[in-house]
Parts: sequence; C-alpha cells; structure tokens
Amino acid sequence: MQIFEEFGNTDVEGVDSTNACYGGTAALFNCVNWVESSSWDGRYGLVVCTDSAVYAEGPARPTGGAGAIAMLIGPDAPISFESKYRGTHMTHVYDFYKPNLASEYPVVDGKLSQTCYLMALDSCYKCFCSKYEKFEGKQFSISDADYFVFHSPYNKLVQKSFARLYFNDFLCSASSVEKDGREKLEPFSTLTGDESYQNRELEKTSQQVAKHLYDEKVQPSTLLPKQIGNMYTASIYAAFASLLHNKHRTLVNQRVVMFSYGSGLSSTMFSFKLQEGQHPFSLSNIAAVLNVSEKLKARHVFTPEKFVETLKLMEHRYGAKDFVTSEDTSLLSPGTFYLTNVDYMYRRYYAKKSTEGMTNGKTAGCKNQSLANGY
Amino acid sequence: MQIFEEFGNTDVEGVDSTNACYGGTAALFNCVNWVESSSWDGRYGLVVCTDSAVYAEGPARPTGGAGAIAMLIGPDAPISFESKYRGTHMTHVYDFYKPNLASEYPVVDGKLSQTCYLMALDSCYKCFCSKYEKFEGKQFSISDADYFVFHSPYNKLVQKSFARLYFNDFLCSASSVEKDGREKLEPFSTLTGDESYQNRELEKTSQQVAKHLYDEKVQPSTLLPKQIGNMYTASIYAAFASLLHNKHRTLVNQRVVMFSYGSGLSSTMFSFKLQEGQHPFSLSNIAAVLNVSEKLKARHVFTPEKFVETLKLMEHRYGAKDFVTSEDTSLLSPGTFYLTNVDYMYRRYYAKKSTEGMTNGKTAGCKNQSLANGY
Repeated sequence: MQIFEEFGNTDVEGVDSTNACYGGTAALFNCVNWVESSSWDGRYGLVVCTDSAVYAEGPARPTGGAGAIAMLIGPDAPISFESKYRGTHMTHVYDFYKPNLASEYPVVDGKLSQTCYLMALDSCYKCFCSKYEKFEGKQFSISDADYFVFHSPYNKLVQKSFARLYFNDFLCSASSVEKDGREKLEPFSTLTGDESYQNRELEKTSQQVAKHLYDEKVQPSTLLPKQIGNMYTASIYAAFASLLHNKHRTLVNQRVVMFSYGSGLSSTMFSFKLQEGQHPFSLSNIAAVLNVSEKLKARHVFTPEKFVETLKLMEHRYGAKDFVTSEDTSLLSPGTFYLTNVDYMYRRYYAKKSTEGMTNGKTAGCKNQSLANGY
Repeated sequence: MQIFEEFGNTDVEGVDSTNACYGGTAALFNCVNWVESSSWDGRYGLVVCTDSAVYAEGPARPTGGAGAIAMLIGPDAPISFESKYRGTHMTHVYDFYKPNLASEYPVVDGKLSQTCYLMALDSCYKCFCSKYEKFEGKQFSISDADYFVFHSPYNKLVQKSFARLYFNDFLCSASSVEKDGREKLEPFSTLTGDESYQNRELEKTSQQVAKHLYDEKVQPSTLLPKQIGNMYTASIYAAFASLLHNKHRTLVNQRVVMFSYGSGLSSTMFSFKLQEGQHPFSLSNIAAVLNVSEKLKARHVFTPEKFVETLKLMEHRYGAKDFVTSEDTSLLSPGTFYLTNVDYMYRRYYAKKSTEGMTNGKTAGCKNQSLANGY
C-alpha cells in the first residue's frame, strides 16, 4: 500500500485472498466481479500472485520454485471471461498444508494430493461441461477449446490431467474422441471412479492416445512451469503467460480453458476468449512486456549447495525479528523491492534498488529510497 | 465445506478474505460484487465473520470478546447497498498485528491504533462525502444518515468517532452543525490535523456537543459490542445487529452509514438503505431470528480466574498437535460444532452437538455425528 500512499491514493479496495495455490484465482475472480459490479468506479483492478514454493529436504524439494504474476483487470480487455461456464469443486482434505507455524515448509502427502487434483479436475470438468451445455445447448468436449492451461506443480501431472479430460470425453460420449482412442480406452470404460485414479494402464493409455492433442493444446503453456518449477499461486498464470509468449500471434478468437487447483482443496475450471485488443493492452504488447525469453535468460544459476544454504538462512529467519539482510543487491534487477531489515518489534522495512542505468528509462527518477513505516 | 459436501454440493466459490478486523467487510464486498457480476448464478452468497479476540495478560485483556455473524447475500434484499458512495482508506502501519506465529496474542500499540482509527475515519468520511456530492449534487452531513455504526473495539472509541464526524462537518461547513456546536468548536478550527487528534479539550467538547445526536444515531447500535467486547471481524456487524434488534420496526427508508476498520490498516465507510422486505427476509424476521435478547440471556457467567485458566489452555494448544478436547459439551447450545481432536499430523476433527430437544425442531434429525476428514 505504501506505493499508492506515496502518491496520495489511499482509496484502494481489496485484501488478501488466502488459499494455497488457488489464492490468486480467488483474487482474480473477486477483481473481475468488482469491475462488473455497481461498486466499480472506472479504475483498474490489480491482482498479484506470488509465493516462494519451498519444501523441507527430501524428494519434493527440487519441484519448488518462485515467481510472481501481476494482472491488470479492466473493461474491454483482450482476455474476456466466459464466467457463466465456470465449474468449482471444493472439499475438505489434508493433501498439502502448513500446520507448523514455526516453519515455512508444508506437510505434503504427494500421492493423496495427486489423486485429489485429478478428482477435482474431473468434478470441475463435469460441472463446466454441464453449464456449457445449459447455456449453449450443445455438449462440450476438448475440441471446443483451443488450449488448456493447468496449475502445474510438476509437468507429469499436467500430462496426466489432459489425458484425464480425454478419458472424461470418452466416458461421456465415445463418439467425441477419435476411433483409435475409443478402441484403446474401451477396456477401461467399466472401471469405477476410484479404480480409474489408481489404474496405471489407463494412465499410460490415455496419455498415449491424447498425446497429439496434448502437443497442440497444452504443450505451448508448459514453458515457464517447466523452467521455474512450482510457483503456487502464480503457477497457472505463468503457464498462461507461456501460451501468450508462444502463440500471441494466432490467439484471436481462440478459447482457453484454465484449471486452477489449491490443496485443501479449492479448484475451478474457467474459460476465456481472446482478442488482439488495443495498444497498450493488445496481446502482442502483453507478450512484449512479459518478455519471457529475456527474463528466463537473465536468471542466475546456483549450485544445489548454495540453494540449500539459502533455504537454511530462510528457515532461520522465518518468523524471526531483529535482523538485517545482506547489503549486496548486485544480483537484483533494477527496480526490485527487497527486505532490508526486521526490527525488534517484527516490523519489516523495504528498499527499492535504483533504476539508474535501466535501458528503457521509463522509471528513471526513482531513487534507492527506503520506504518508511507509515506512522 | 464439509457441510455442503455432505449434500453433494461442491460447486461453491470463494475463499478467506484475510485482514484483521476488516476481513469480514472485504468478504462482504466480494460477495455483493459477485451477486452483481456476470458470474452470479442465482444462488445466495454467505459471509461468515468470526474470531476469538484475545489478548495477553495486561490492560487490553478485558476488552476482548468473541462472536460470529453470518450474512446471507442475495437480490431484492431489505438491506440495499449504496456502493457508489463508499470511501476507503488503506495505509501501511503497525498499530496492531500478530507477528509471533507461536502465539494467538497480538502486539498492540493502543495509542497509535486509536489515532490510526480516527485518521482513517476522517479520510473515509471525506472520501464518502466527496463521492456522495459527486453523485447527488449536494453536500453530505451527519443529518443525511439516520444511523452510524462503527467497528467497536471498545465503546469509548465509538463515542470519539461520532464526535469526530461532527467536528468534520463543522470544519467542512460550519452551517451544517447547530449554533451551540459551532460556538463551542470555533476555538479548535485552526488546529492542524495532527494537533486535533491529540487535543483532549477538542475530544471532550466535540463529544459534548454531539451527545444528543450520538444518543439518537449511534447508541442503538452499541448494545452487543458493549455486552460482548471486541469481536474483531464480527464487531461492526454485531453493532448493526444491535440496531436491527432495537429499531427494526422503524427502519424503513432509513440510511445507515457503516465504518469498518482493520489494523494494519484497512478501512471503509459505506452505506445502505433499509426496506421491510418480504418474509423470510424481512427486517422483522431477521430481528426475530437474531433473537438478541435471548442469546444475551443464554450466556454463561464465569469468574476472571476461570477465563484466565481457559486462555492458558488455549495458549498451550495454539498451533499444537496430538490432543483431544474435553468431552463435556454441556455448556454448548444444541447444534453447535466443536473441535474434538487434533491428530499427530495436525489434522482437525469436529463434531456437532445433538439438536434433540431443540424447541423449534427445525434441525431435528441432525445427530451428534463426527464429520470425517474427506479422503
């Protein structure tokens, strides 16, 4: 809020939407609803999704990552929601959670979480299809969307997910899938729901018969999640950013279906349609501003040992007070905000790295100033 | 979510809105926006505000309390928002916060928090008045609303707050306050903003000249906050429930102005108008269902020593695992959900007290069943 306050604007609505990896999607829906409501006053909404996805030592640690996605919400956007179709699935389950308040690390039941994800996907897809049929008077199948974008804790789950949608289409109406797929999936048509989640043969077969569609409709969205690892709330939007990066020249009139999942669990399948839009909010300019290739290239590479050392420092500082962070900001990009210290009362102070020397000069004039603590 | 899931409904949107005492207001706005948006599908929205407002040993402890307010949101309601006028004030400040993750108790700077509250009130009121003038083409003053309802950490602050609005009216346009008030406030008209927050004489004088209006426009909303103490997110809505309880017979066409404050800080002034409405959503039925008098009477009285003992048990259990709660549910009302145990993985289990013997019989059939943990 300090950034708005500095410019005399404190009339800004909205608070944190808290909910594992789904929090960003909840914030996005809240923001879109606001723009469509009578309380909207003509200004833009802003959604920020960001986390450090870190894990205790063990097999989950290498799947972690970190990223931030910010979204500007307003009218006449090139990304236009089809809110009537969206299907949500919420249940109470302990697949991944953070009960130990002294630690940033989650408690994870990986196998349970994967099954929950697929069950939630099935439920959301059924709900989405049913609403689509209600409003459009015809059945929905994979062929009605050009791209599918998934929350991506790891890519293998995204592959399984798309195959699962293909299997759903087959179960719902065998004629909606190709002959080859139909024949190969037939032996699995009598499995119960629970059996189908555990059946490795079905998993393999459905991925195989859906492979060509996966390459066309899903693969373009997998770049950033594969390169960065899990990002929790930013994950699905980084996947969509990958799609914009890869396909922005050909997205006009295309439909994208998104599946957002947060452990605990909250999940929604929703869709939007794309238009080129007007500069600066055109798809091509969004892709240019995202600048995905350059940002990936600008990353710094560290050894696993250095990563472990950094996490140890974070463990030590999590929830702590009375410490000062490193003054070495050489690895930060110009314009980055960073924590300078936490005082004896746990109050946090931030600074912004100087933007002098930035090539586009847009934010020249911002100094390396410490943001004061209000009152 | 288990309650919805049990009836096969998992297509329920929305997650926690997290923000100190203001969280309930944020959830309410999100919910109202949803009903007004294109994603609304005809169902009711539900907002639940609840906290245990507990403090470490010391002078703040007796101001604590606990309560829950649930609100059903839908179209054609007897409570109709005037969303265009609402004024928000958000700034970054450490007046009250919970930095120690191992404790439920906040760090409180009472003096700072009171000043922040009054500054936020001033800023929201100015913003509210300015929007009202923009849309209505005339100035707003206290006389344009029938009731004012405040977030109520303690009643003294509510008295100061209303006096502050009176002083704002005087500063903005002396003619909008009575002659007596005008004369008595004149000596304070040259104070700077900061001076005015610290000036005890101004505080006393403005409360005195606003007293008759306080009794008329504010006092009817103070019953529950005075009887229960602070309730954090529920506080302002419990204050409004007090107004409904006291005045439901005469609220038709009346305007209520609400001021919600959460430390940190987030604050909004908003208003609505009241209609009698149709049963079961009529004001008289809402007042009957709230049943304020009986609920106050049904409370159990404990000694301070027993209260301290209970808080010690809560301290011990905060963030803990592997414990079972008391099996004595004799003090709980029929139909109450309660925590039965937290297992070795920090998973929480609840039960519902049998409703057998409830006089209205509406929920007969619910058994004292343990809600399972999903998968």
